Amino acid sequence: MTRKLRMGMVGGGQDAFIGAIHRLAANMDGLIELSCGALSINPEMAVASGKALFLPESRTYLTYEEMIIAEAALPADERIDFVTIVTPNFAHFAPAMMALDHGFNVVIEKPITFSLEEAKQLEQKLKETGLTLCLTHTYSGYPMVKQAKAMVREGKLGKIRKVWVEYPQGWLSKLSEREGNAQAAWRTDPKKSGKSSVMGDIGTHAAHLAEYITGSKITDICAELNTLVEGRVMDDDGAVLLKFDNGAKGVLMASQVASGEENAVKIRVYGEKGGIEWLQHEPNSLIIKWLEEPMQILRAGSNYAHLSSFARHNCRTPGGHPEGYLEAFANIYRNFALTLGCKIDGTEPTPEMLDFPSIEDGLRGMAFIDNVVLSAQSDKKWTPNVL
Amino acid sequence: MTRKLRMGMVGGGQDAFIGAIHRLAANMDGLIELSCGALSINPEMAVASGKALFLPESRTYLTYEEMIIAEAALPADERIDFVTIVTPNFAHFAPAMMALDHGFNVVIEKPITFSLEEAKQLEQKLKETGLTLCLTHTYSGYPMVKQAKAMVREGKLGKIRKVWVEYPQGWLSKLSEREGNAQAAWRTDPKKSGKSSVMGDIGTHAAHLAEYITGSKITDICAELNTLVEGRVMDDDGAVLLKFDNGAKGVLMASQVASGEENAVKIRVYGEKGGIEWLQHEPNSLIIKWLEEPMQILRAGSNYAHLSSFARHNCRTPGGHPEGYLEAFANIYRNFALTLGCKIDGTEPTPEMLDFPSIEDGLRGMAFIDNVVLSAQSDKKWTPNVL
Amino acid sequence: MTRKLRMGMVGGGQDAFIGAIHRLAANMDGLIELSCGALSINPEMAVASGKALFLPESRTYLTYEEMIIAEAALPADERIDFVTIVTPNFAHFAPAMMALDHGFNVVIEKPITFSLEEAKQLEQKLKETGLTLCLTHTYSGYPMVKQAKAMVREGKLGKIRKVWVEYPQGWLSKLSEREGNAQAAWRTDPKKSGKSSVMGDIGTHAAHLAEYITGSKITDICAELNTLVEGRVMDDDGAVLLKFDNGAKGVLMASQVASGEENAVKIRVYGEKGGIEWLQHEPNSLIIKWLEEPMQILRAGSNYAHLSSFARHNCRTPGGHPEGYLEAFANIYRNFALTLGCKIDGTEPTPEMLDFPSIEDGLRGMAFIDNVVLSAQSDKKWTPNVL
Amino acid sequence: MTRKLRMGMVGGGQDAFIGAIHRLAANMDGLIELSCGALSINPEMAVASGKALFLPESRTYLTYEEMIIAEAALPADERIDFVTIVTPNFAHFAPAMMALDHGFNVVIEKPITFSLEEAKQLEQKLKETGLTLCLTHTYSGYPMVKQAKAMVREGKLGKIRKVWVEYPQGWLSKLSEREGNAQAAWRTDPKKSGKSSVMGDIGTHAAHLAEYITGSKITDICAELNTLVEGRVMDDDGAVLLKFDNGAKGVLMASQVASGEENAVKIRVYGEKGGIEWLQHEPNSLIIKWLEEPMQILRAGSNYAHLSSFARHNCRTPGGHPEGYLEAFANIYRNFALTLGCKIDGTEPTPEMLDFPSIEDGLRGMAFIDNVVLSAQSDKKWTPNVL
Repeated sequence: MTRKLRMGMVGGGQDAFIGAIHRLAANMDGLIELSCGALSINPEMAVASGKALFLPESRTYLTYEEMIIAEAALPADERIDFVTIVTPNFAHFAPAMMALDHGFNVVIEKPITFSLEEAKQLEQKLKETGLTLCLTHTYSGYPMVKQAKAMVREGKLGKIRKVWVEYPQGWLSKLSEREGNAQAAWRTDPKKSGKSSVMGDIGTHAAHLAEYITGSKITDICAELNTLVEGRVMDDDGAVLLKFDNGAKGVLMASQVASGEENAVKIRVYGEKGGIEWLQHEPNSLIIKWLEEPMQILRAGSNYAHLSSFARHNCRTPGGHPEGYLEAFANIYRNFALTLGCKIDGTEPTPEMLDFPSIEDGLRGMAFIDNVVLSAQSDKKWTPNVL
Repeated sequence: MTRKLRMGMVGGGQDAFIGAIHRLAANMDGLIELSCGALSINPEMAVASGKALFLPESRTYLTYEEMIIAEAALPADERIDFVTIVTPNFAHFAPAMMALDHGFNVVIEKPITFSLEEAKQLEQKLKETGLTLCLTHTYSGYPMVKQAKAMVREGKLGKIRKVWVEYPQGWLSKLSEREGNAQAAWRTDPKKSGKSSVMGDIGTHAAHLAEYITGSKITDICAELNTLVEGRVMDDDGAVLLKFDNGAKGVLMASQVASGEENAVKIRVYGEKGGIEWLQHEPNSLIIKWLEEPMQILRAGSNYAHLSSFARHNCRTPGGHPEGYLEAFANIYRNFALTLGCKIDGTEPTPEMLDFPSIEDGLRGMAFIDNVVLSAQSDKKWTPNVL
Repeated sequence: MTRKLRMGMVGGGQDAFIGAIHRLAANMDGLIELSCGALSINPEMAVASGKALFLPESRTYLTYEEMIIAEAALPADERIDFVTIVTPNFAHFAPAMMALDHGFNVVIEKPITFSLEEAKQLEQKLKETGLTLCLTHTYSGYPMVKQAKAMVREGKLGKIRKVWVEYPQGWLSKLSEREGNAQAAWRTDPKKSGKSSVMGDIGTHAAHLAEYITGSKITDICAELNTLVEGRVMDDDGAVLLKFDNGAKGVLMASQVASGEENAVKIRVYGEKGGIEWLQHEPNSLIIKWLEEPMQILRAGSNYAHLSSFARHNCRTPGGHPEGYLEAFANIYRNFALTLGCKIDGTEPTPEMLDFPSIEDGLRGMAFIDNVVLSAQSDKKWTPNVL
Repeated sequence: MTRKLRMGMVGGGQDAFIGAIHRLAANMDGLIELSCGALSINPEMAVASGKALFLPESRTYLTYEEMIIAEAALPADERIDFVTIVTPNFAHFAPAMMALDHGFNVVIEKPITFSLEEAKQLEQKLKETGLTLCLTHTYSGYPMVKQAKAMVREGKLGKIRKVWVEYPQGWLSKLSEREGNAQAAWRTDPKKSGKSSVMGDIGTHAAHLAEYITGSKITDICAELNTLVEGRVMDDDGAVLLKFDNGAKGVLMASQVASGEENAVKIRVYGEKGGIEWLQHEPNSLIIKWLEEPMQILRAGSNYAHLSSFARHNCRTPGGHPEGYLEAFANIYRNFALTLGCKIDGTEPTPEMLDFPSIEDGLRGMAFIDNVVLSAQSDKKWTPNVL
């Protein structure tokens, strides 16, 4: 890369959660600078947030439309390279389409859109424009998740037979949406969140992780969705039996009412020769359980040859210096930035750089949500997981 | 108790696995002595095994029929108090019935019988005779499992909403039944094992554990059973979605082909106020995840008042002296022996003594196997879990 | 073995702690039966304890002298094979000597005696009589400790450079000896405990473990002993810098006032090629940290070839069925019994059978206590650790 | 803060290690921008590194002297606010003094200088100039370390009695300094590293952590230093017995030859009422072992009231989103920047902002190194730890 990339942010004001995470992730490696923002639909919040982020007043916009039009009118060496969209789910599509229409690449917080139909329109637009979209499925940004994928791809575990993936959270164990929790409020509101709260917010992460590591697609599902907190309008818990296109079977469990759980994303994948286990709470370890050898623990940042180039590329420190959620998030931004940098420089990105979630993952996520809801409403055991 | 109880063993010769475990468990507390045995259907093995166990020749029998008849003919202060049956599943019922018919109490390795019908006959016989049957569902013998049950019963976690129970093993990841592994051979043979291998061998343990801790019954199930090793005759993997009679939902996962896993029984139960997690590999810890307080780890053998009388009664050592599988197994034998001792002495057993698995657990286990197989064969999502 | 061995117990009445542990350990494998006892210096307690253990009245003795004399007068096929001594430290020597004088083998709870001088007299007596003494240093009875020793012996870790061994307990964090805690009272009383409380009770375990695993002897020490609870008469905490005869260096830490700690014995040994870590709270795992390969976790009861014959011989169950403190204790009794059985049968015990702590370990333990006290009182940095 | 702070870096070229860490940490929160650098003594490396970091050519300097003079001559709204020094130990002092002399605040990688004398001169210069110095003792930047300090300060653990702190690394287990490892080469060279390699590189971290959490000073030490790899010029291992000014005792262990260890900094502190345990490899957990209550695990980012304002201030994400080494490092930069921002804005920094290591920690670290070396050379057991 020959220069820093310039980022404009839609959403992410001081009263929001995920916007700050995106900025930490984008800042970390010194490859991206926040150049402008339409940080809130509340004008006062937008201005105050811009100031707190040291944005110039001239580039602290009140609406994303204003931002995209104004930035598109700036000289090429000043205007932003991409737009990051960190608004609630229902407000992803419109700014994304407008950004693409004005020639800006796009980063979107997951789930990619409110509906599968919107995601398909985005896909079409990307084809037409040749621009790049990056979807921030954080968990596949962890180096040891990439290591797991590499080991499956290289056949280290043999043919994959079984996948168990789980995402327990407890933060919706009370009816927080009625007690002034803004995060809870929009996530449990079907007009803002989408068809399923638990699957939209966390189930898609789990499904993405399972497909990412195994390199296989989920073809059939048997789902149940539950509302376990009385008075809640949307689901807050679910489980899905899975069939994969390589013949493997799986179970996906996601809950927002697993009282006392933080964000304990965990995946186990078993093949003929061994299994892997990865837990987000200790993300720098990948446990390998061999069928006929002692268990190994691979560690991020280690020197040994066992670590794949994909794991190495996504570590910043030697073993024993724990990297975490923000670094995983930053890996997505870094790979996106390096890829965009290559595009700008006219060079070829490496496979490691290209390894970030894209429109295809977004489409599969939206289809998964739709199909889980269909399956949950059906008396039939199995429902195909089609786009 | 005023004297040691006398035990006769059916099965458990030198070439078997679980019989030795039963003897270790029965020996430990000095409440039971092995007095006789019909240790193998192979006469040479029976004799050699009796010798190795220092049994007198006169009480080393060649068949269980011979044993039961001979022992019944001994004077009351010599003959055995109970028969322990540690043969493969298909050979539980006949010796159990005969033992009961001759006035002997019975301990049976799980699953209780080959079929639900047999279990129902045993139930009837127990009602008629007033004798005691003990089923060795080991995992509910652990003190911290009893602690979990006590905490649920006392409402510490609030209303229970969600149960995740899993039993991963990897020992059948290869087609070991064709490679001379006797344990694998009978367990994957439908004539010896029953309707389901994975559910009979380990799934019933998981279901028992879930019902034991929650104090609720599984009312509906949605099951899949898989044969993931090519060439195998029976299932070796499965998953079951669960509904409980208190409104809670659950997921049960059991696999014998989770390569590299040992015997990692784990259960998580979430209520309105918090959740508990227990893992057999670290059985002396019970993790309590509170919704609004820091996580706690309760430890077996601790002095603090948080431990229930049931947990305390089932510990032998102070905290920090790890007790394990054999002690959990011994707890079942100890409680059975103390209960039988009370019966002999004409005293009243405490609730702690009476806390061992019985015919009811056996019936529920057999019904669960039957219903899981029905559900797995059905296109309908939900199947009632009825006796 | 052709028959069960007969054991007589000195100490271990219902009001004691370690006697019950010895009985559980001796019972477990069905190789030993408790035949008689002098279970308490309090005659009522002695009688009540004998009854509770189902001992015949005729073999429930009131003093160890009475027991030894009476048992020696019994016919050979009735009298005990060995005496187990589980009294407080000051009362080990006399019954041990008398037992040996009457031809009985001996098992003694550690530390072997009250003073080094007594231990030397025992050594002399053992030489004269040819009898066998077993010292119950529990921690070297764990299979994964034996595995660690085997790996060091086989050079798997290269030349050993560094040893860290620690034994934190918290049970003396308050002045419990003044609050009616009988265990605390004798252990903190220099007339009953010996020269050092913390080193006698737990420091010797740590020193034994370090020498056992490394196969090296501690040659020089630099010690401090602290009394960290006000009002206590003896030390309750200490640390010792160590030099080993192979050139390795070490640190030993022992505390009875590490508030909140249970019995967290831990040892780490580092060689040129890798290190091992073993923690008693998770005793079935041995962590191997390789210098140039991923970390491995060896598990007790596993099938793979990495487990030494010594580890295998001391496991009772397959991997994933946790064995604990009582099984480690039982391993000592089992190996002692098998060795004695060979003696009786005129056969040769295997190296695995002979692997239990003996008089030499007792002597080294007593010398270590003496030398630590000397060093702690000295202004000089280093004190030789001589017998 | 009303604007980003501008940073100039001395050292940290593309061939260095710790400079990149400093940049990641300084970037993360968007409060600091890298404005210039004298990144290498090798001019080509300096230029290439500046380019890779997108620095303007005009502010890519070849020496720190050039940088400081040129920056001091820039207008106030362009020139840097502070200089970060990330050179090897022997090259800290001169640029620090020169920066202070020209009115720049300073951040220095630890140990602060090559000798105690240099550190004292820095202290004097800071007094004269009123400028701010920040020392990057990373481990006290972790939120759960700050939580531990808060709990000790608030008396939650009662009077502190015992401290165990350890820092095992294995990266110098071979003679890497002879095999082209540049990091190993300067750290084991007494002309570049200082009086002690192991204590300068990692022992001071451990000593700082112990004093930081306990709020007590180490007053006396008994040290040994070892060279455990044949052919090495400096020490690579050591242990120190500690006395604290509040009467507590301690043990510090540091090794660079603990084969297979990564960077496993760990501290345990025991008081009258309980103990805490913190391990850098799982930095978001603080284990609290209560004397008379169940163990608790406090988690970074949690909502409950148990977390101190200092822990909260130093978390960026909710519980379950693991933060790591870079975030701890960034906390130091953030607090330094916020403090400097207040100075610039004329406002009062909060106690949470002021909580970063300073010259006093630097002085104590240098004195500790000196005193450990003195003690290691002495035959006397105890050496005072004086400045």
